[in-house]
Amino acid sequence: MDYLELKEYLGAEMLCVDKALDQAITFIESELESDIGDAIRHGVMSDGKRLRPILCTTAYRECGGQAEKTVYDLSASLEMIHAYSLMHDDLPCMDDAELRRGQATTHSVFGEDVTIRAAAALIPAAARQALQSARKLECGASGAAVVVQELLEAAGAGGMVGGQWLDLLGEGQTLSPKELDELHGRKTGALLTASLVMGALAAAAETETVSALASYGHSIGLAFQITDDVLDATQSAELLGKNPSDVDLDKSTYVGLYGLDQAKEHARERIADALGALESIDIDAPVLTVLARYVIERER
Amino acid sequence: MDYLELKEYLGAEMLCVDKALDQAITFIESELESDIGDAIRHGVMSDGKRLRPILCTTAYRECGGQAEKTVYDLSASLEMIHAYSLMHDDLPCMDDAELRRGQATTHSVFGEDVTIRAAAALIPAAARQALQSARKLECGASGAAVVVQELLEAAGAGGMVGGQWLDLLGEGQTLSPKELDELHGRKTGALLTASLVMGALAAAAETETVSALASYGHSIGLAFQITDDVLDATQSAELLGKNPSDVDLDKSTYVGLYGLDQAKEHARERIADALGALESIDIDAPVLTVLARYVIERER
Repeated sequence: MDYLELKEYLGAEMLCVDKALDQAITFIESELESDIGDAIRHGVMSDGKRLRPILCTTAYRECGGQAEKTVYDLSASLEMIHAYSLMHDDLPCMDDAELRRGQATTHSVFGEDVTIRAAAALIPAAARQALQSARKLECGASGAAVVVQELLEAAGAGGMVGGQWLDLLGEGQTLSPKELDELHGRKTGALLTASLVMGALAAAAETETVSALASYGHSIGLAFQITDDVLDATQSAELLGKNPSDVDLDKSTYVGLYGLDQAKEHARERIADALGALESIDIDAPVLTVLARYVIERER
Repeated sequence: MDYLELKEYLGAEMLCVDKALDQAITFIESELESDIGDAIRHGVMSDGKRLRPILCTTAYRECGGQAEKTVYDLSASLEMIHAYSLMHDDLPCMDDAELRRGQATTHSVFGEDVTIRAAAALIPAAARQALQSARKLECGASGAAVVVQELLEAAGAGGMVGGQWLDLLGEGQTLSPKELDELHGRKTGALLTASLVMGALAAAAETETVSALASYGHSIGLAFQITDDVLDATQSAELLGKNPSDVDLDKSTYVGLYGLDQAKEHARERIADALGALESIDIDAPVLTVLARYVIERER
């Protein structure tokens, strides 16, 4: 598979993920008896790469999973958690961002109160979504609990929220390389890793395979964040569709820490780690292989 | 069982629930690698009645559940969800409360950003806590998914969050009795009902029993809220340990809608409904029987 084929693959996957997401949100809206689900829809459906869901469906498929349709429902749970975290990240008392993914942020359209509620509602909705879809996959009803456990761990204090907290504490300070890895390993890496692990577990993959994909996820997660910092430092807000950058918020970045060239080298090393993890196991993973390289080659 | 015995029972249960909660929070803190779990501990462990956990353990026991210790772990998940909702309710952009349960609210001690994160972290932590403990109870691993589903539904858009939203929309408006029942049925009632249903399901109770306890929960939930409004109208903030009241926030209350005497009568009718539901099934439920009456007789 080359980059052109990968881009076609990603585009096709995105459509399927968005369809599953739309269904999930339509259901949440039906529970709300009014148009207040608009904030949820705005936060979740705004333009995005759907990287986490696609990592999940791809890992599932490359581990031999056969339930083509249901796995999109499982993968939607990851985007719901991701969207909740962005909605909270952008709040005035956090990063105070007006623009995200090229659109007005949820709180700047719907207000803080509605956004905090809408985001929090996405957490139980995502867990329910994962629980209901995973039990229909190869992992079965008892394995579904383990799949959901992964999502909950990644979304919680040990994962994403812990990382957001380190992020908050790190403002105005210069973090060490180890601290910055720890921050991003939890803030972004935990959910990216969970995406792959959930896909592999749902396909009832062997323990060794699940571990290797977790390691792959951790490495591409760091490479992804380094690349974000590189793009922030080299491209305009207009092209990236978001503001303000971490530099404006006085946060440590990989570019600030290593300089541009060394940061890029650091990202390449992480991708080599990811590919090494893939090669250590006995599965044919053409998409995950190309995807790892693409993480650092992307332009937005 | 009389009220004096009930108060002793509630006191003893509260100690066991608090022990399980303390363990759960200690684990979350261990995941955070710094003292930032303090906000979570403050929000969860502040003085409270632990009504939801105690409804859960009591329903479990009166449905024949035998795992005396583990059910406290399950019940702790309900208090964690309840605490998250209070932490968000009290925020400046919501009710803007400085005092709750006689203590400074979490955001007034730790700030908005930390409180929003801490509260959101409690949702996946609660779901994980419920998942891990329920599988050790009579319902088994496959039943545990159903137990957690109840928690997620109650905490989500169809339950608590939906109710909070109706609450938000209802400010400055006069709601009809039906709208006010709908609001509180979701905002408070959904989680109270889930407490009983989760306890019954965990004990592997029959479907008929689970339904009757759900109905009991719905009725005492409404009675509980009416009594809150009555207490707000008749007692000082100092005694209640919270401010401001719904009246100050220009929200509809049962006392405003019905007047004091009719509101009390309305609460008594709901308790009669709850007792009717209990009598319709073939379980011996001395504690739930007295507890229903106590809901409207309490002084804070």
